[in-house]
Amino acid sequence: MIAKLNERIRETAPIVVGLDPKLDYIPDRIKKPVLAEYGKTAEAVGEIFWLYNREIVDHVMDLIPAVKPQIAMYEQFGLEGLRAYKRTVDYCRSHGLIVISDVKRGDIGSTSASYAEAHLGKTAVGDGSAHVTGFETDFVTVNPYLGTDGVQPFVDVCAREDKGIFVLVKTSNPSSGEFQDRLVVDETSGRNRPLYELVGEMVEHWGASSMDGDYSNVGAVVGATYPEQGRILRELMPHACILVPGYGAQGGKGSDLVHFFRPDGLGAIVNSSRGIIAAWQKDERFRDSGNVGQAARAAVVDMREDIAQALEGR
Amino acid sequence: MIAKLNERIRETAPIVVGLDPKLDYIPDRIKKPVLAEYGKTAEAVGEIFWLYNREIVDHVMDLIPAVKPQIAMYEQFGLEGLRAYKRTVDYCRSHGLIVISDVKRGDIGSTSASYAEAHLGKTAVGDGSAHVTGFETDFVTVNPYLGTDGVQPFVDVCAREDKGIFVLVKTSNPSSGEFQDRLVVDETSGRNRPLYELVGEMVEHWGASSMDGDYSNVGAVVGATYPEQGRILRELMPHACILVPGYGAQGGKGSDLVHFFRPDGLGAIVNSSRGIIAAWQKDERFRDSGNVGQAARAAVVDMREDIAQALEGR
Repeated sequence: MIAKLNERIRETAPIVVGLDPKLDYIPDRIKKPVLAEYGKTAEAVGEIFWLYNREIVDHVMDLIPAVKPQIAMYEQFGLEGLRAYKRTVDYCRSHGLIVISDVKRGDIGSTSASYAEAHLGKTAVGDGSAHVTGFETDFVTVNPYLGTDGVQPFVDVCAREDKGIFVLVKTSNPSSGEFQDRLVVDETSGRNRPLYELVGEMVEHWGASSMDGDYSNVGAVVGATYPEQGRILRELMPHACILVPGYGAQGGKGSDLVHFFRPDGLGAIVNSSRGIIAAWQKDERFRDSGNVGQAARAAVVDMREDIAQALEGR
Repeated sequence: MIAKLNERIRETAPIVVGLDPKLDYIPDRIKKPVLAEYGKTAEAVGEIFWLYNREIVDHVMDLIPAVKPQIAMYEQFGLEGLRAYKRTVDYCRSHGLIVISDVKRGDIGSTSASYAEAHLGKTAVGDGSAHVTGFETDFVTVNPYLGTDGVQPFVDVCAREDKGIFVLVKTSNPSSGEFQDRLVVDETSGRNRPLYELVGEMVEHWGASSMDGDYSNVGAVVGATYPEQGRILRELMPHACILVPGYGAQGGKGSDLVHFFRPDGLGAIVNSSRGIIAAWQKDERFRDSGNVGQAARAAVVDMREDIAQALEGR
């Protein structure tokens, strides 16, 4: 699956649009008719999220390789929210977009296996002659805190189904250093090293059996807000594609991204959510009309330019 | 919420039954009629899980304070699986059981807030005059890898809604030590300490503002399979209730549990899943009839005795 993602990145740009809807981001022209029809219900929210996502996707799908829905935004509204999540994922995949589902799951072995089947695989029912899928997508994000037996079930399903994962290594949030940056005694190297380096080395290790072209189906999440750590992790994980959140609204700039990429121009894919999906609120050209889609398209073009300039200048 | 859980533990036993259904655990007398009616579909699986859970709950609810559904088992079957999860949670809560939902969520701040509202709170729709709930439950498990700003949104919702969380500290799986046991340089104490100790100290810190009786609404997960670490963590987190998985099928015994409890007989609640919900498969009295409920009840009684004996003998 990573080979397919890299091929699509080469054709378009190393950008993933975060489909993380919030009611505050959505113009009244979408919300009002739905609330009038369904009332202030979870069903209404699901329908609003779906209409909003579809409008964005329709306007950006030719410019990008992938989208990244954050499942929490949908889970917040229960079954109706997750129905909108599934509609969004299915719609994007049916139009050829790769979907990176930001689920940050991770558990003990047998339970991680259930999550892996839920989001990347399928499950036998009855005598095994029939299978059902849960929320099938192309990539998921995985939390490494439980160690190898929490991650390996995802790697196994990736091998079987040609899917991929991005393991949380150094996250973009302000307090990510609280545990991730702690210096760990490393008897192998004889020096003390931050925990995220050890997790990064495990990403490379887990991915060794999952090569797909020059990269592995086991990638890593490293926040744009930590460019220096990105440089170190880029070297420690030569075969991992890095999913980079934190660009734009969280503070990361194009110039922060250069170290995340390899010389081949691949090796990283940068996420922006609010900066694209809520661009209409900050862009005078679209604010009055609430033209979510055109504003998102303009924001993607700007982001593509920002990243291209940064990479040219390195 | 932890005061309510402790009150119920005093009335019954420090036992939580893990409602982690798998088709392999469920007798044909439940499965066959549903598969005949719905075919080999996710809808069938959801209905089967619901009937199975209800039978177990009906037979054990007077013996226990709480149940712990593992959401992955349901998520595996998509929307229909999660509908069965929600039916189960709602049914248990309507019968006075406390529900500890094992979701192991955790993300950056604003996203953790969405997960917290999804599982413990509620979300405003429209002008704020109406709220919808997602999968409302009483406690959730939380992954700490992202640090304070990933955990605090859960703590905040707990304060507002009188709910609780259990933070993963030392998990029960074989490779939990890969990161959790790594020795971390601790300049405060001047010695190197395992990461789980630092996470445990943060649990106590996060919980300081969430006291509810003698305990905090911020608890911890520590596996029964690591009794020595349980002893250390019991001392480091004097106000945290410890949720203890790994008893029974994963290898933990009653004698392993003594250090998890405080002298008041509280401070820990022990989970058993397969050992109870699939007890009929290993118990000659119930194997032929597939009497899931009576077998579960007998297994809870045995477990209660095992724990009581271990605590008396300490």
